Amino acid sequence: MKLYEDSRAPNPRRVRIFLAEKGIEVPRIELDIMAEEHLAPEMARRNPLTRVPFLELDDGTVIAETVAICRYFEALQPAPSLMGETPKEQAVIEMWQRRVEQNLFQTVSQCFRHQHPRMAHLETPQIPEWGAANKPKAEWMLALLDRELAERPFIAGPDFSIADITAICTIDFMKVARIEMGDELVNLRRWRETVSQRPSAAA
Amino acid sequence: MKLYEDSRAPNPRRVRIFLAEKGIEVPRIELDIMAEEHLAPEMARRNPLTRVPFLELDDGTVIAETVAICRYFEALQPAPSLMGETPKEQAVIEMWQRRVEQNLFQTVSQCFRHQHPRMAHLETPQIPEWGAANKPKAEWMLALLDRELAERPFIAGPDFSIADITAICTIDFMKVARIEMGDELVNLRRWRETVSQRPSAAA
Ligand SMILES: N[C@@H](CCC(=O)N[C@@H](CS)C(=O)NCC(=O)O)C(=O)O
Ligand SMILES: N[C@@H](CCC(=O)N[C@@H](CS)C(=O)NCC(=O)O)C(=O)O
Repeated sequence: MKLYEDSRAPNPRRVRIFLAEKGIEVPRIELDIMAEEHLAPEMARRNPLTRVPFLELDDGTVIAETVAICRYFEALQPAPSLMGETPKEQAVIEMWQRRVEQNLFQTVSQCFRHQHPRMAHLETPQIPEWGAANKPKAEWMLALLDRELAERPFIAGPDFSIADITAICTIDFMKVARIEMGDELVNLRRWRETVSQRPSAAA
Repeated sequence: MKLYEDSRAPNPRRVRIFLAEKGIEVPRIELDIMAEEHLAPEMARRNPLTRVPFLELDDGTVIAETVAICRYFEALQPAPSLMGETPKEQAVIEMWQRRVEQNLFQTVSQCFRHQHPRMAHLETPQIPEWGAANKPKAEWMLALLDRELAERPFIAGPDFSIADITAICTIDFMKVARIEMGDELVNLRRWRETVSQRPSAAA
């Protein structure tokens, strides 16, 4: 199998951290987004939504969408669990993964995609006003996560999970979207330090 | 357990169809979004993201996010499967569920939320230009689904799945966002008819 990615982009990093936590290695093929390599006809044929990452299995099946790729590896090799074991754990982790994804990852992405000149060829039309409107939404979510992390070590509970992976990849990516993590968010800072020290964070 | 919802809104319908397919009944509590009942302090305490639907378990745990609620019931009662059995099936269904969610449900929602006067109190700021920019994106995704449905009966493969649920709830909701399904989309029309005839569609 092969994993197609742009190694500088945040979604592919989510998959790399997930795989590192499980100790799984997958051959990777680099596609330069800025050079539009992911839009080449032979890539669009594999993945008509033309985003990275996507995974190609040996039988030719393509699995796109970051979380769907993670789901595949979680089902193939359940330990260590990153998506929960009991029905309740699975649901709570999925809830937090989605909350972080929709309210932090997406808002930060919209800031970046609609305001950064380098994204003008990929995000059409760019609507700077919409980008700017997402900044307070992202900041609101950071504050919410800070309050939640006063009560538990990781975003979805006592254990590290895919929700933490989505969050760390977003927070490390916020700089290019010109969003900062306020000094007052002490629980989020403590969490960030803990998660950044895991070997997988270097992935 | 209790399911909090606004029965006229599309996300709660996704959960109702999912439950109907599994033959599971859950007591429901109606919250009127237009009257901002979902924003009342006792609801925001349960679900700080203040959207519906959300599920409250008997032990007080709250599971919010449509797909996380579905995941909970899929894990509790796997049959009939709506999220796939083998690792590959699970991943392909998750991929299509997410593609429909992000490229159709979200784009239709943004059209509606940023352009409809009735949403002005909930979507702040409303940016009509952003709403309008989502219409061609939604139409592009409808055409893509039509091409895919030339090759198989359901969105994610040979069987009905959660991806079909997300799609039918979005398509039935497009009217209020003033998006139409073109007459030329014959495969999508055939699919819509088939899915609408399932007893669960009345949920
Ligand atoms: N829904 C996709 C989104 C993937 C995505 O947006 N990837 C970015 C890189 S982080 C990309 O491919 N951008 C290129 C483009 O916008 O054309 C997923 O979850 O994997
Ligand atoms: N990410 C949430 C979104 C839920 C959502 O947006 N629900 C709408 C009704 S379909 C809502 O609660 N709207 C009220 C509001 O915007 O305040 C999910 O997947 O459940």
